[in-house]
Amino acid sequence: MARSRVVIIGAGFGGLACARALAHCPADVLVIDRNNYHLFTPLLYQVASSLLNAADIARPVRTIFKDAGNVRFRQGEVSGVDLAGRTVEIVGAPAEPYDYLVIAAGSTTNFFAVEGAEEHSLGLKDLAEALELRNHVLGCLEHASVAPTGEATSWLTFVVAGGGPTGVEYAGALSELARLILPEYPELEGRRIRIMLVEGLSHVLPPFPASLREAARHELERKGIEVRTDTRVEAAVSKHVLLSTGEEIGARTLVWAAGVRPAALAAGIDAARTRSGRLAVDATLRLRGSENVFAIGDVAGVAHGDREVPMLSAPAMQEGRHAAKNIVRLSRGEAPLPFRYRDRGSMATIGKNAAVASIGPVRLRGFVGWVTWLAVHLYFLIGFRNRLAVLAGWAWNYLRSDRPVRIIARARERR
Amino acid sequence: MARSRVVIIGAGFGGLACARALAHCPADVLVIDRNNYHLFTPLLYQVASSLLNAADIARPVRTIFKDAGNVRFRQGEVSGVDLAGRTVEIVGAPAEPYDYLVIAAGSTTNFFAVEGAEEHSLGLKDLAEALELRNHVLGCLEHASVAPTGEATSWLTFVVAGGGPTGVEYAGALSELARLILPEYPELEGRRIRIMLVEGLSHVLPPFPASLREAARHELERKGIEVRTDTRVEAAVSKHVLLSTGEEIGARTLVWAAGVRPAALAAGIDAARTRSGRLAVDATLRLRGSENVFAIGDVAGVAHGDREVPMLSAPAMQEGRHAAKNIVRLSRGEAPLPFRYRDRGSMATIGKNAAVASIGPVRLRGFVGWVTWLAVHLYFLIGFRNRLAVLAGWAWNYLRSDRPVRIIARARERR
Repeated sequence: MARSRVVIIGAGFGGLACARALAHCPADVLVIDRNNYHLFTPLLYQVASSLLNAADIARPVRTIFKDAGNVRFRQGEVSGVDLAGRTVEIVGAPAEPYDYLVIAAGSTTNFFAVEGAEEHSLGLKDLAEALELRNHVLGCLEHASVAPTGEATSWLTFVVAGGGPTGVEYAGALSELARLILPEYPELEGRRIRIMLVEGLSHVLPPFPASLREAARHELERKGIEVRTDTRVEAAVSKHVLLSTGEEIGARTLVWAAGVRPAALAAGIDAARTRSGRLAVDATLRLRGSENVFAIGDVAGVAHGDREVPMLSAPAMQEGRHAAKNIVRLSRGEAPLPFRYRDRGSMATIGKNAAVASIGPVRLRGFVGWVTWLAVHLYFLIGFRNRLAVLAGWAWNYLRSDRPVRIIARARERR
Repeated sequence: MARSRVVIIGAGFGGLACARALAHCPADVLVIDRNNYHLFTPLLYQVASSLLNAADIARPVRTIFKDAGNVRFRQGEVSGVDLAGRTVEIVGAPAEPYDYLVIAAGSTTNFFAVEGAEEHSLGLKDLAEALELRNHVLGCLEHASVAPTGEATSWLTFVVAGGGPTGVEYAGALSELARLILPEYPELEGRRIRIMLVEGLSHVLPPFPASLREAARHELERKGIEVRTDTRVEAAVSKHVLLSTGEEIGARTLVWAAGVRPAALAAGIDAARTRSGRLAVDATLRLRGSENVFAIGDVAGVAHGDREVPMLSAPAMQEGRHAAKNIVRLSRGEAPLPFRYRDRGSMATIGKNAAVASIGPVRLRGFVGWVTWLAVHLYFLIGFRNRLAVLAGWAWNYLRSDRPVRIIARARERR
């Protein structure tokens, strides 16, 4: 029997888990990603807030699979999939044929058609955005230090849209960065940094239990963050953010963490989609009606009771491993098995010594929640060196209250 | 007596040494730099070759002076100096008046009018260039892995122009990176990476003693680097480098480390310049004929016997401290003292366990030279955290032969 050729689109949590499960199996696996690294996105806000280096949370895909002779990597942008011809189209490169395809293309920022949001906000979805956000925030303080009094305020006002884990964690980290860095600007003596967290629903961390939502809000407010629930960003213009309350906030920074939607690739695939725009899959994680094409992670609408599995890393990893198992079964002539999502809980950190975690019936908060958060994130980070670097970064931050990566730097554009 | 107002243009080795010497003195000091950090350029090639993170060798100027109440910082681009009006002009900001001015604007890459060099080469002079070079080199391997056989060769050929310390150190580091990373590209099995070091004079490391020059060349060749002395880059076009020997090398990468010249600012200052284009200064480091304007470092032509002090970090630091001392003396009504350059020697590393160092009559090489190189660089690095991070990076590299910062990443351009 010929070895199956498996193509995996995306080296995020889903694609990577699938490829790792297929390593050393009798199949030739090709992983395609637009970046040459797997990114540990749960810690991206720590890169954006000057705590960690980019390379601490990113690991080259080739390095991850250097000992797996059957897994290859291709850096490239997938432009489409020819389901009938069983090939994946890559920008500027020959199409890649497959026997089994795993679509793990992830998600992209959802601006919910808010006017000016895409143009005037900064994102926190990939490394390029996190680096830009870090540069921008540090640059705001430099601008404020030379701006006339009236203008300085808008350079020192930061609006974060979205009260989910990303928005909450970034707002908390930003307040710690601000407290640390402001004394280095004698020009700004007597001024304060204003951070506003805006959430459309009536609570931050909406999916969390009520007790933890309240704990998180209390902790955010204790840090001086203005939490605006039942409030939406209505529009963004160049130096202002308009809220649904009618307020017009003078702010040079709008961080958009309000939501995600399936990657654009999904819309270009000739297959059914769920109401949320995710690719509709059957119980075995295959595109409905397809024998050999799987979709997993944020891009796949996997049923979970009367809802869909949430767009998070944990279910993506579970689905990735399950898709791998089903590919092995199919290539052996066995029937694929149905997937069942196991909700292991969720957690978010608000800052030093403060996190909330909901794991089954267990509710953790404060220091215990924070230590649990640290341990879980360290465990899931890939690569010994990355764990070491992140642990060292955290230890430094804990002992010195320092966020040391405070340089404004960008790679030079080629001449 | 009113406190003197001192403006220092540039936070490189010279400007920083001057500002540190003036910290806690009865003067108001303003340091201006286009970047918000001081960069430890001797280790820049280790950022470019995936060993260190950018933040390991860069430290925010504000952080350095956070405990010195009399030293302020301004991030900005100096466009000119009005010597008669005693003000420094900054792009997009009000001019800054001074009583004493220290011009420490450094140097810029010298392309020696080689055709196409500026357009088609990558530099190694600042952090932006180092990050771009890292991205580019890693990208070359990705390109080579999908290129047709004929084209792959040019993606795998790297020409380094300039056999001084920067060129030698980068070429050595690149060969270590190449040996490490090539096995992660099964598509390139059987292929090799070609690194060529081109130097116009008849030796690499021209100012070093002959025995060390030979040792360096031997070590470079042992690493598989083609060392071409008595050879110049004549021209660079998009996929080729033309050598003075008539050879045309198919290469997608030309790293330009062939020389520097005084920063452009020098040409805009209404003062005498030396033959090398540096600002002519008297024995007290003041612009000839000026009472209150000092020039130090690469931008200043300081006499040393019948030559000029070399464009290196060590003399810049000595001059920075001396200028500070003379400013203090002048503000007290004392006569300024003449500067005397003390040559402490020079060193360069070619790779793990191999460096050359010439310190007075002492000649070191191999492991001893390498350990000396490490210790000296660690000593001069500013900031406890930077030292810790660099030491950790070196230890990891030594123990694991790994260069872990192998991600292709750039900050996103604002929409």
